[in-house]
Amino acid sequence: MKILVTGATGFIGQNLIKHLLNQDHSLVLLVRHNSDISILDNRASLFYYSDEINNLITLFQKELFDGVIHLASLFLATHQSHNIPNLIHSNIQLGTELLEACKLSKTSWFLNTGTFWQHYENEVYNPVNLYAATKQAFEDIAKYYTETSDLIFTTLNLNDTFGPNDTRNKVFNLWYQLTQTGATLQMSPGEQIIDICYIEDVINAYEILINHLKMNPNDVKNKKFAIHSNERMSLKKLSKVFENTIGIPLNIEWGKRSYREREVMIPWKDTQPLPGWKPKYSLIEAIQKTIGTMK
Amino acid sequence: MKILVTGATGFIGQNLIKHLLNQDHSLVLLVRHNSDISILDNRASLFYYSDEINNLITLFQKELFDGVIHLASLFLATHQSHNIPNLIHSNIQLGTELLEACKLSKTSWFLNTGTFWQHYENEVYNPVNLYAATKQAFEDIAKYYTETSDLIFTTLNLNDTFGPNDTRNKVFNLWYQLTQTGATLQMSPGEQIIDICYIEDVINAYEILINHLKMNPNDVKNKKFAIHSNERMSLKKLSKVFENTIGIPLNIEWGKRSYREREVMIPWKDTQPLPGWKPKYSLIEAIQKTIGTMK
Repeated sequence: MKILVTGATGFIGQNLIKHLLNQDHSLVLLVRHNSDISILDNRASLFYYSDEINNLITLFQKELFDGVIHLASLFLATHQSHNIPNLIHSNIQLGTELLEACKLSKTSWFLNTGTFWQHYENEVYNPVNLYAATKQAFEDIAKYYTETSDLIFTTLNLNDTFGPNDTRNKVFNLWYQLTQTGATLQMSPGEQIIDICYIEDVINAYEILINHLKMNPNDVKNKKFAIHSNERMSLKKLSKVFENTIGIPLNIEWGKRSYREREVMIPWKDTQPLPGWKPKYSLIEAIQKTIGTMK
Repeated sequence: MKILVTGATGFIGQNLIKHLLNQDHSLVLLVRHNSDISILDNRASLFYYSDEINNLITLFQKELFDGVIHLASLFLATHQSHNIPNLIHSNIQLGTELLEACKLSKTSWFLNTGTFWQHYENEVYNPVNLYAATKQAFEDIAKYYTETSDLIFTTLNLNDTFGPNDTRNKVFNLWYQLTQTGATLQMSPGEQIIDICYIEDVINAYEILINHLKMNPNDVKNKKFAIHSNERMSLKKLSKVFENTIGIPLNIEWGKRSYREREVMIPWKDTQPLPGWKPKYSLIEAIQKTIGTMK
């Protein structure tokens, strides 16, 4: 298939692109002028985003993509006032422009990426932060396009992810540093439940969903599916699993920091599983595969 | 009360501002550099919107408004691709910046304006057009602010409105032109139900809701109220009422044009009435009061 992918330089993007190229899909990556394209697989073509929507429409009309995989987003756990224009541009306007281009060029499907954080306290909609609110707002925009065209729109809802070569400032990287330096880390009381997925399982979910989009689009149209772990546990317990897997004790002072405002104590549960998907790797296996790449 | 008002130069804005000033409220009107401020009541102060959100926040922290009445929007019955940035800026980003300023300055309430067009075919949410989708998207953003502050957010949902000195290109103005020129107008079959409200009744609804926001905010918090006519009728029948009131026959060729795509045949019905509000004027009275100003 010929697919346009956004968010190519992110952790999930890099892994997904490699996987899709290995399957001989033809990819065009939508990148920004300031994107670090040196990390991108050179088997994919690049298209530079500009403020002129006609450039995007022309691309779509020329390439006649089968679908769009929309991973790009501006993630901010907490925002500052001056971030608002960028949050709205990245998380609402860019996607709207893509949907407009899809409608005009009769693209078959659009695979969107959502977040568990749209569902604080397990509500149908309650955003943890402004980032999650902009994600929800984009889904409202998408409804206009699905109502006025044949576009198949589907959202894959992700929570935490991890895997080899993950450079994001996430908990496993922080903990790995402790084992190397012997430093002490102050953390919250650690009772929040963590739902973290291994990258190969996440990529597998995208692959399965893309196949549904091609083979049985009506089964997935306008639906949201969640990718989550079979092994949810508290942050404190997760640290023990990590410690046991790596074989080096972690110096964590639990309770020395407060929970953040609107800390998610229990991740979204009321999810629709993606048909045909389940994690292939246990948490311990996945941590083992990840540790080898840490530095 | 001290109130910030957006959309001051629009038809509802101009009428509402005059009314609120007559009641001795203190108003600051948020205007754009290209707004026609010559039409604004000079008893109100003006503040020019800029792309720098800190200017807005500084204004809010200095003025300590009781509330915001948000009327500004970019209305487009059908959009062109190049309208997307302006639609998103006017209907989502501006409101988000206002909510951010409200949160930071502990403003008590925010009165938003919605549209029946968020409810195509009487659905909880189904946007008639991209304009309506951006209105819905903004309400998602607002949920973040109401969840993370004490801000009271309320939406007044409007449909068609009319009244004296309405310069918008709406049906009564079109029909009045027919009576003056004797021209013929081609219209759709005219079976769509029209729900149109007289401006004094609309302004009265705002006044009642503002009083609720001050006196019993918890009764209206996070609610949507609809302002609609007690005299819904088909467009064709409405033309007869207009014709009889003005006493001059209209030359309309019904059915010579198609309904527009996603024509609203039956306006939103599943509405929550605003407590204490009902129209004061019959449709005939309201048309009589309007005709005298037409030219």
